[in-house]
Amino acid sequence: MPPADWLRKAEDIAAAVAIRANEGDAAGRDPVDEIALLREAGFLAAAEPHEIGGGGLAWSETLPLVRIVARGSGSIGQLLGYHYVMSQSPGFYGQAPFGRGGNGERLRRRSVAEGWHWAGAANPLDPGLVLTPDGDGWRASGRKTFATGARFADWLTLSSKLGDAPVVFALPRRRAGIGFLDDWDHLGQRQTASGTILFDDVRVEPDELVAELPPLEQQPVWLNMRVPMLQLAFVNFYIGVAEGALASARDYIRSTTRAWPTSGVSEARQDPYILEHYGLLHANLAAAAALADRAAVAVDAALARGQGLTLDERNLAAAEVFAAKVNTTHTVLEVTAKVFDLMGARATARRFGFDRYWRDVRTHSLHDPVAYKAREVGNHALNGTITPHWGYT
Amino acid sequence: MPPADWLRKAEDIAAAVAIRANEGDAAGRDPVDEIALLREAGFLAAAEPHEIGGGGLAWSETLPLVRIVARGSGSIGQLLGYHYVMSQSPGFYGQAPFGRGGNGERLRRRSVAEGWHWAGAANPLDPGLVLTPDGDGWRASGRKTFATGARFADWLTLSSKLGDAPVVFALPRRRAGIGFLDDWDHLGQRQTASGTILFDDVRVEPDELVAELPPLEQQPVWLNMRVPMLQLAFVNFYIGVAEGALASARDYIRSTTRAWPTSGVSEARQDPYILEHYGLLHANLAAAAALADRAAVAVDAALARGQGLTLDERNLAAAEVFAAKVNTTHTVLEVTAKVFDLMGARATARRFGFDRYWRDVRTHSLHDPVAYKAREVGNHALNGTITPHWGYT
Amino acid sequence: MPPADWLRKAEDIAAAVAIRANEGDAAGRDPVDEIALLREAGFLAAAEPHEIGGGGLAWSETLPLVRIVARGSGSIGQLLGYHYVMSQSPGFYGQAPFGRGGNGERLRRRSVAEGWHWAGAANPLDPGLVLTPDGDGWRASGRKTFATGARFADWLTLSSKLGDAPVVFALPRRRAGIGFLDDWDHLGQRQTASGTILFDDVRVEPDELVAELPPLEQQPVWLNMRVPMLQLAFVNFYIGVAEGALASARDYIRSTTRAWPTSGVSEARQDPYILEHYGLLHANLAAAAALADRAAVAVDAALARGQGLTLDERNLAAAEVFAAKVNTTHTVLEVTAKVFDLMGARATARRFGFDRYWRDVRTHSLHDPVAYKAREVGNHALNGTITPHWGYT
Amino acid sequence: MPPADWLRKAEDIAAAVAIRANEGDAAGRDPVDEIALLREAGFLAAAEPHEIGGGGLAWSETLPLVRIVARGSGSIGQLLGYHYVMSQSPGFYGQAPFGRGGNGERLRRRSVAEGWHWAGAANPLDPGLVLTPDGDGWRASGRKTFATGARFADWLTLSSKLGDAPVVFALPRRRAGIGFLDDWDHLGQRQTASGTILFDDVRVEPDELVAELPPLEQQPVWLNMRVPMLQLAFVNFYIGVAEGALASARDYIRSTTRAWPTSGVSEARQDPYILEHYGLLHANLAAAAALADRAAVAVDAALARGQGLTLDERNLAAAEVFAAKVNTTHTVLEVTAKVFDLMGARATARRFGFDRYWRDVRTHSLHDPVAYKAREVGNHALNGTITPHWGYT
Repeated sequence: MPPADWLRKAEDIAAAVAIRANEGDAAGRDPVDEIALLREAGFLAAAEPHEIGGGGLAWSETLPLVRIVARGSGSIGQLLGYHYVMSQSPGFYGQAPFGRGGNGERLRRRSVAEGWHWAGAANPLDPGLVLTPDGDGWRASGRKTFATGARFADWLTLSSKLGDAPVVFALPRRRAGIGFLDDWDHLGQRQTASGTILFDDVRVEPDELVAELPPLEQQPVWLNMRVPMLQLAFVNFYIGVAEGALASARDYIRSTTRAWPTSGVSEARQDPYILEHYGLLHANLAAAAALADRAAVAVDAALARGQGLTLDERNLAAAEVFAAKVNTTHTVLEVTAKVFDLMGARATARRFGFDRYWRDVRTHSLHDPVAYKAREVGNHALNGTITPHWGYT
Repeated sequence: MPPADWLRKAEDIAAAVAIRANEGDAAGRDPVDEIALLREAGFLAAAEPHEIGGGGLAWSETLPLVRIVARGSGSIGQLLGYHYVMSQSPGFYGQAPFGRGGNGERLRRRSVAEGWHWAGAANPLDPGLVLTPDGDGWRASGRKTFATGARFADWLTLSSKLGDAPVVFALPRRRAGIGFLDDWDHLGQRQTASGTILFDDVRVEPDELVAELPPLEQQPVWLNMRVPMLQLAFVNFYIGVAEGALASARDYIRSTTRAWPTSGVSEARQDPYILEHYGLLHANLAAAAALADRAAVAVDAALARGQGLTLDERNLAAAEVFAAKVNTTHTVLEVTAKVFDLMGARATARRFGFDRYWRDVRTHSLHDPVAYKAREVGNHALNGTITPHWGYT
Repeated sequence: MPPADWLRKAEDIAAAVAIRANEGDAAGRDPVDEIALLREAGFLAAAEPHEIGGGGLAWSETLPLVRIVARGSGSIGQLLGYHYVMSQSPGFYGQAPFGRGGNGERLRRRSVAEGWHWAGAANPLDPGLVLTPDGDGWRASGRKTFATGARFADWLTLSSKLGDAPVVFALPRRRAGIGFLDDWDHLGQRQTASGTILFDDVRVEPDELVAELPPLEQQPVWLNMRVPMLQLAFVNFYIGVAEGALASARDYIRSTTRAWPTSGVSEARQDPYILEHYGLLHANLAAAAALADRAAVAVDAALARGQGLTLDERNLAAAEVFAAKVNTTHTVLEVTAKVFDLMGARATARRFGFDRYWRDVRTHSLHDPVAYKAREVGNHALNGTITPHWGYT
Repeated sequence: MPPADWLRKAEDIAAAVAIRANEGDAAGRDPVDEIALLREAGFLAAAEPHEIGGGGLAWSETLPLVRIVARGSGSIGQLLGYHYVMSQSPGFYGQAPFGRGGNGERLRRRSVAEGWHWAGAANPLDPGLVLTPDGDGWRASGRKTFATGARFADWLTLSSKLGDAPVVFALPRRRAGIGFLDDWDHLGQRQTASGTILFDDVRVEPDELVAELPPLEQQPVWLNMRVPMLQLAFVNFYIGVAEGALASARDYIRSTTRAWPTSGVSEARQDPYILEHYGLLHANLAAAAALADRAAVAVDAALARGQGLTLDERNLAAAEVFAAKVNTTHTVLEVTAKVFDLMGARATARRFGFDRYWRDVRTHSLHDPVAYKAREVGNHALNGTITPHWGYT
């Protein structure tokens, strides 16, 4: 299927998802129907290679799907973006030289064959999960916060340590001993179930251990590409949410907003200030989207270097992604807040749910402080480097 | 009681009101306890003359009470501001030459004596209330939207027409035939009950008719001073809400926010970007507050001119108020959205209710389009005039 | 020569041009040396087809040359961009059905063969040039303002009327009767000689008349593509100027700016606020550039439709260009003004010439009001149309 | 003379000064005529006590004079502001316990009696002036940069050290051995002669030594009040310059700017976007001015505490001033850059000199980095303190 067909399909999914987005947001409902829709449309394997039955899309072709789906629902966009990163983790970490016995590759093939939805618990500021030996395998105990989507995923990518070695492993979500706190009650992205996952003496089979990595300081730079890939997924669902906000505002202005008495026009959509400010928001959002697309090309290029990636090459791609993150964050917060000025007072009625867009981007854009991303963009431009911190930069 | 004592008392009220503000916001609860608190503290009569038992505060001394109370709750701040405008309406419109039989003055004295809380239904875009003769009085039928606080007020200021003459009258809220739709379910200012009021053949006594005014185009300019007075009340509760947001953010940063890993400091409150951006928001909000205070002095001066007020004098005061409205609107939207960047991701948990501030100012600041207020500020500066539109400019 | 080689060559030219940019700016010197450099490098024919000896670059491949050259000098960037539009005019207007006797095509081929530098006088708000019959040709008299580069160009594209029919014709700049006022003394773009051109009974030969067009209201939409092409050339030299400003700031910060006493760092390039704000400016400028590139692809697509272009297709391309204009204008004004905050007080010494960047973009970005471009972007998004006005939208 | 009369007089001076402001800016001319005008109007002694023949204005009454004069010329506004600080230095430092033999008070009285214009060389980052004993007095040698106005002042306030003790002394500008480099050729504030002053074995008489101060760390906090006083003078002449820009723009729009073809209005001053954006700039500048006025009241209050001033009281006043500095800096840069959007392309002709406003505020606002002032505002709000650094915070 050519990329353009994926885009069209994504638009259909966005439209379908949008119908229940306000209801799901209000209830914080687990979006199992929406995940099923993605599975049926083949979206869960879109980024996997053709050879194993996937869609064969490059990262730069995958992210537009995330963006478009997020127009309908920021939560579903985030879940899809996280899925793409998490579902690739077994294959990515499981390759030589750090992979264990081809486990990653086997999981990846099963995932495509069986249409698994992946989530994970990868908060690098949260060292809460401990592995202990258990016969030929291990036992996992502890907890992880911000485990987006884990509650209703099929499989989970997880991280822990064996001795000093970071390890990556994978578990089916229904494995005995895995539990969830119902503690994701935040302003936005309310259908992502980004709460706490609990591990109570959970069995980990030998073939579920994907990789043993060197200590962080000794890791080769190609392993870090997960960070710009994930950050660029953020950027794309932010943009999708803001595009959704602008589209909703357009429909509302055309159908419902009244012309202001002193405007001199009879329809709101002819109001000089509505036209001007809609135009400004549209232009700035288009610029953010264009930069996100350019950064995706840079990530593709870095990924294509494989394990030969140098630090400078990786920093170049990361700096493009972080620039997109900085620009996008400011832009989407502005767009989703200012659409109300275009729609007018009655648009604040809760039944419309027009605040969902702002809540979604306001909530997730705090994942890591945008000022520090700006600093790294400056750092790269002025000093040719990026301050190292695993998991964020 | 000197103004400084009123300010101190307002701070106590703000602190008391803040405790239940999130709960009240979530429930959309009618704030009868909070109104009782204002009554007991003498706040309902603060702006009435000493001679009839009031606090004797000028408009410039009254608005700071609105601002401070709004730090604790935007809804209570709005209700207090509207009360000050609506409770003064009988005395204002009821003076010669348009007043009827001293009715306004009598109502005003009873209001002070009995501690009435006033609301009204004055949406000038909504011509929904009709009076018909009924013996020595009238019958009122119809409806008004956006009747802030009317549901739980003691008395209401209302407007309608007798023939071509606009009239102002007042009714006790419990008068038979008055009803309310429970249709105020908006994003913010959720305790203001700004929904629809219904009038089903409601008796209006002769001494409840406050004034018969000339047709709009023939009205003397002093009657228009209600517009800048009300708009400046808006400005003040917006500022109060944003001050509340900054104060909450300060407490949270000091108590809860974690230092960012690459910040090089051990406490969030030493983070260079948190300091910088807190400082920026604080500075801009202080400027908005200073301009609001200056505009209040201009309104005092215009009010002091009484019925001798000229159009130029009125436009001068209105232009100052509208400038404050424009600057304040942009500033409070920015402050209440950006405090999250200072507090971090965990501050988006709903239990904190930190989004209340943004929802409150986002909702009410759409009362009339800020772009049109900017236009009038420019209009006054460039052309020495303001586009006439009753009720908004 | 592949596009990448053109880009490298453009960087060399930018570096060469930058050396004399401050001197040329101060003197308002005619940049004949710089034009010669462009000619020698083959840049004047870069956008012409291979078949007639040109570089064969698409519009989307041509504009990056404008942008890069503008890093060295905004004036030279503007002149190059105008040259590309004006040198294509004979071929563009001279095609059937409006072309006269293949004159346009002949001029185009001579231009490539002889390396002509083109300018023009196309200010559509300025109807100052009159043609009168003269034997087999005409006589031109009158004047045009804002005739960028005409004073030192080889050939000029000009517009006038024959009866009601707009005509396009071309003249060698040295033709007897053509004169120039030395009246371009503006803040920026000081080497563009954008002053007044005078025509005193200037002979126009029959083969210099390129095209007779229908009256404006009856013109087919493909003729209007000159507007988005030109506007996108503006966008690109604005971006180039701002990129030049950021590059200069980087060099100055690294070499000269002192660390601030309370910064806690020893080098300015480690200052947290310099890093943050440099990063912000860099990110926003990168977004503007990415959108400009995307708009260029849209223009290519519209141009590829030839005379079959529909109004909707043309509006789509124009709206993309105008969105880029709006976003870019705000961004480049911010970048070129704020670089001083990064460099510090001593960078305002005139000998550095760091204000040239701001003066250049501030001056040219007033060509047409950016608020009206924002309006048209909103107009297209909300109403699917663009307000017609020849020469600007 | 009541304050209102001073304001009126300041407006007259501003109008007189404005006439030659562009010419003086272009030439970098020493403004000796303008200083004479200030002297004749009694402005040089406006801030001195009535008892010794001064105008008796408080600091909050003095700064509006600086602001108003700056409307006509930013350079003259700066010189007047610096004069007020420098002329008060002998009296301020010369009081007990650090004053020497009443020298400061004697100089102050002579200054008022003889109408001296003061300047100084107080750049605290520049330790370039050395005193050596010379009989009953001293010899001064060395240099100071950024010696605003020193070249044409009557008397100079200077700082140096005797051993470890900082000392303040005063010299007549014409004293033998004092020289000046003609090295102030910066973008703005071009008539302030803020270049280098040279001291070649300059005699300092015993009665010219005003004060011997304790080492910096041991100085009582009241001595630091010079910093907020000076910073608030900056704020005021910035505001004045921006007010001058808006006033010029208004005149130009009304007299010269053409209505845009698609605006639907016949006069530029009715253009919806010109009205809106003029209104926005006006509103934001009014807010900056109101905050500056409020900060001046805080400075008055701190000064009234005399030597009893506590660190907390001083920090409170300084934080208000720094908040005004932060808000004002952003606002005046925006106003002076954006007025061009209101006036249109032809307003960039150099003969109008409309860029002077932006150059003036862009140049001086770099005196110390605004990001660090924002940090201190945040520091005071979050931590109750201000980072100490003599001369800047």
